[in-house]
Amino acid sequence: MKKDSSLGKYRETLHEIIFEADTPAGKLFDIILIVSIVLSVIVVMLDSVSTIRNSYGGFLVLSEWFFTFLFTIEYFFRLSCVGRPFKYATSFFGIVDLLAIIPTYLSFFLPGSQFLIVIRILRVLRIFRVFKLVQYLVEIRLLNEALRASRRKIIVFLFTVFTLVIIFGSMMYVIEGEQSGFTSIPRSIYWAIVTLTTVGYGDISPKTGFGQALAAVIMIIGYAIIAVPTGIVTTEIARATERKVFTQACRVCSAEGHDIDAKHCKYCGAKL
Amino acid sequence: MKKDSSLGKYRETLHEIIFEADTPAGKLFDIILIVSIVLSVIVVMLDSVSTIRNSYGGFLVLSEWFFTFLFTIEYFFRLSCVGRPFKYATSFFGIVDLLAIIPTYLSFFLPGSQFLIVIRILRVLRIFRVFKLVQYLVEIRLLNEALRASRRKIIVFLFTVFTLVIIFGSMMYVIEGEQSGFTSIPRSIYWAIVTLTTVGYGDISPKTGFGQALAAVIMIIGYAIIAVPTGIVTTEIARATERKVFTQACRVCSAEGHDIDAKHCKYCGAKL
Amino acid sequence: MKKDSSLGKYRETLHEIIFEADTPAGKLFDIILIVSIVLSVIVVMLDSVSTIRNSYGGFLVLSEWFFTFLFTIEYFFRLSCVGRPFKYATSFFGIVDLLAIIPTYLSFFLPGSQFLIVIRILRVLRIFRVFKLVQYLVEIRLLNEALRASRRKIIVFLFTVFTLVIIFGSMMYVIEGEQSGFTSIPRSIYWAIVTLTTVGYGDISPKTGFGQALAAVIMIIGYAIIAVPTGIVTTEIARATERKVFTQACRVCSAEGHDIDAKHCKYCGAKL
Amino acid sequence: MKKDSSLGKYRETLHEIIFEADTPAGKLFDIILIVSIVLSVIVVMLDSVSTIRNSYGGFLVLSEWFFTFLFTIEYFFRLSCVGRPFKYATSFFGIVDLLAIIPTYLSFFLPGSQFLIVIRILRVLRIFRVFKLVQYLVEIRLLNEALRASRRKIIVFLFTVFTLVIIFGSMMYVIEGEQSGFTSIPRSIYWAIVTLTTVGYGDISPKTGFGQALAAVIMIIGYAIIAVPTGIVTTEIARATERKVFTQACRVCSAEGHDIDAKHCKYCGAKL
Repeated sequence: MKKDSSLGKYRETLHEIIFEADTPAGKLFDIILIVSIVLSVIVVMLDSVSTIRNSYGGFLVLSEWFFTFLFTIEYFFRLSCVGRPFKYATSFFGIVDLLAIIPTYLSFFLPGSQFLIVIRILRVLRIFRVFKLVQYLVEIRLLNEALRASRRKIIVFLFTVFTLVIIFGSMMYVIEGEQSGFTSIPRSIYWAIVTLTTVGYGDISPKTGFGQALAAVIMIIGYAIIAVPTGIVTTEIARATERKVFTQACRVCSAEGHDIDAKHCKYCGAKL
Repeated sequence: MKKDSSLGKYRETLHEIIFEADTPAGKLFDIILIVSIVLSVIVVMLDSVSTIRNSYGGFLVLSEWFFTFLFTIEYFFRLSCVGRPFKYATSFFGIVDLLAIIPTYLSFFLPGSQFLIVIRILRVLRIFRVFKLVQYLVEIRLLNEALRASRRKIIVFLFTVFTLVIIFGSMMYVIEGEQSGFTSIPRSIYWAIVTLTTVGYGDISPKTGFGQALAAVIMIIGYAIIAVPTGIVTTEIARATERKVFTQACRVCSAEGHDIDAKHCKYCGAKL
Repeated sequence: MKKDSSLGKYRETLHEIIFEADTPAGKLFDIILIVSIVLSVIVVMLDSVSTIRNSYGGFLVLSEWFFTFLFTIEYFFRLSCVGRPFKYATSFFGIVDLLAIIPTYLSFFLPGSQFLIVIRILRVLRIFRVFKLVQYLVEIRLLNEALRASRRKIIVFLFTVFTLVIIFGSMMYVIEGEQSGFTSIPRSIYWAIVTLTTVGYGDISPKTGFGQALAAVIMIIGYAIIAVPTGIVTTEIARATERKVFTQACRVCSAEGHDIDAKHCKYCGAKL
Repeated sequence: MKKDSSLGKYRETLHEIIFEADTPAGKLFDIILIVSIVLSVIVVMLDSVSTIRNSYGGFLVLSEWFFTFLFTIEYFFRLSCVGRPFKYATSFFGIVDLLAIIPTYLSFFLPGSQFLIVIRILRVLRIFRVFKLVQYLVEIRLLNEALRASRRKIIVFLFTVFTLVIIFGSMMYVIEGEQSGFTSIPRSIYWAIVTLTTVGYGDISPKTGFGQALAAVIMIIGYAIIAVPTGIVTTEIARATERKVFTQACRVCSAEGHDIDAKHCKYCGAKL
């Protein structure tokens, strides 16, 4: 980060500790933060298990408030030391940081909502940056690129799937009726999604011969069309991987096609 | 659209509004149409939920008739202003437009059939044309191209799957018998499809050791052969993406599907 | 077929009718055969439905015997007119032809085994040859080629899957015990297969927290390793498709990479 | 193996028999070993079936001890004749060999743990080496190579999946509550994994409309993102197959994974 004369020495140091992971203090802060997040998520999970809550309920609630208090302070520190607080507050991590503390306070009005603080697990995504897992960041970018490239095809695919489940769901509602559990079209559509995605709970299942025949059709469609998103994503990942691979050209013999981790040209041995 | 002297000025304007989306009036018409379709489908869905029907049944039935009436008028307008009504009536969208109004009228004779009007959701597919989502149309054509190219392989695959489920279903019927729910061969085939596609409702499941062993074989086959359609479709999507097919059509034989670097039609040899 | 002096005129004609589909008589025979097979399989299926059997049982049993009698005669005709009866009898279709008649006779000793005659559905595979669906035969050969090329990798994969389900099944048996339905190791292995292949009947499911955690591990493994056979088969299908595509070279400009259905070189327009 | 003067003639011969499969004696030993392993695993499986245990319990327990005794002796022989016992003991097969005998002894303290000896099925993996299934070893190495290359992407994918199931699981816990079986967050996460991986036992399933809507979202996500690991692994398998990696190792830095057309080591630049 470039020096910003409007930032006091104090805010600058704070920023370095909280936002960067280059200095020992910054790295320590990040590690403590990640450990706290994971601990607080575990605490909430344990609090939801009735047998554990009955024995350690008080301690767990206390811990929840302790962590939330900690993260609230941290959130305000972040706001105070960042150059443009509004930009941070509306960024992905800024929103996650806020959502990660709200549920505990909300539990005053909506009991049970404190369990939603598990969303702070998203904050752990910082881990890749903190530990300088550069190779991982490269892979994440590659996957993102592939998914962005397949965006439109996937939307068309999902559009088709929604059309199919609405039509098939309604047909099953007409065929099977209330006795088999197809009590309404929305519920039948839910069943159609359960079937098409090959999840198959079995809480609702066709009883009549005709219903079972139609269900078999939906299953086979679901079984076969999974090939479509797979084909789309595979093609894009292959293309993104190839692009990554074929960017480097040897400066001596100008051969291409070197692996991403290659340090020497594989044809003439020159340094890349 | 070319001017057709046999079409009156009135029909021409109507055609422009109803069939095209270039003029403001045409676009407005299409947007109103799509909103009406979505609303009417929601109405039918709500009508199928018994608690909602009990409270708002009258209003919902009225709305259903209102929308069906609207779409009926629209259908006749379409027929009246199109150049060749028969060609429109037998086209994909012509049939969908008709099917989208029939169920409500049919419900006089077959109560319950009105729920089938959800098929009018297919009319929403026009959305890609209306909003000039050209990029989406390109992607849809690419996916279509890939699926058409894998047509025969997929048919062979489905043929194999049907043969497998008939044979395995009958074997399970003989092995497990009536006590485990395998009450007939068609029902056992239904179970084999549920298992092979990895849906697995659990409404019917083998009880004997031998039946479970055979079921395990079916599962592993189903788990492994999903690779076949996926491989087929992936290969074709990769090829279609690479070729960026679908740009040029031969001026002599009007064949399509030429590679991007092709200089001559691959069917008749004419220069492209 | 070459003329064989040891075959009488009569046997030769019979062979042409039964084994070939080039002459009108041969084609008619094959069509009647395929229709009979499909009809006989439908008869057996209907016979297994108790309500239908109660009403039409006599007629169905009679039909079964009629078809079996027909196919038995046909089998002996095939044996009598073929050049090397033993080679035919031990070929794939020879064995299927035999298996397709045995179950009915076996039903004297083992009631219920007559349902296994559905295996005669395999005889319908001749359909691709009879109707000269050459394009389909090409595709089938391509798929066969791809599957044969991935044979060894698939075996290694299945070997890994079997090792996994044996180890995980036994662990679940020790963890969950009899109360949750994991009554023996073979049954627990059955459950592990149901889970790993993502079928998930739910007839047996873990009840303890530790068992559910292990089950979650198995599910995620099963969900992720499906990628392996898919990757193997996709690679081989892509390679087989490419090989097919790239076999033709233009005789004029010797350019390669023509599509399988191309009649003219796409670069110079010469006839291929 | 090179001669090692510190090994007596006796130990050398023993080593050849136990560790190598080149001599007839060594091959015989390995075959007997594999058969014993498979037999002992079958014995343990049968012992877990209560009806069989009741009849043949004594004989089965005796067999278990006999095989364990045999493998214990073998383990010590292996330790005694190998050049560096510690290196063997900490190698993959060394650990498996040890784990394969411990459970029987452990069953004195923890009844039931003897069933865990099925882990000795892993010892059968030696089969590929014993029978010189070189082609299989090549394929295994290729798959390993592909999986190692996709390692990081798969970890990122699993990380995303874990984040998703934690967040979705907690949301379902808040939405559905105790009545539908979502009794705690860990249990709800278990349900989210069951749903996302499309296993779908149905032991827990949403009852409320809102819960079913969220479940539908999870299913469709699970159905669509299976494309990601598949795409990753497919790309790597295709690359590994194309490169036919794994033949050459650099003589200077002994790095592996060079392309088949590489003339220089891509890491140190030395001539290959």
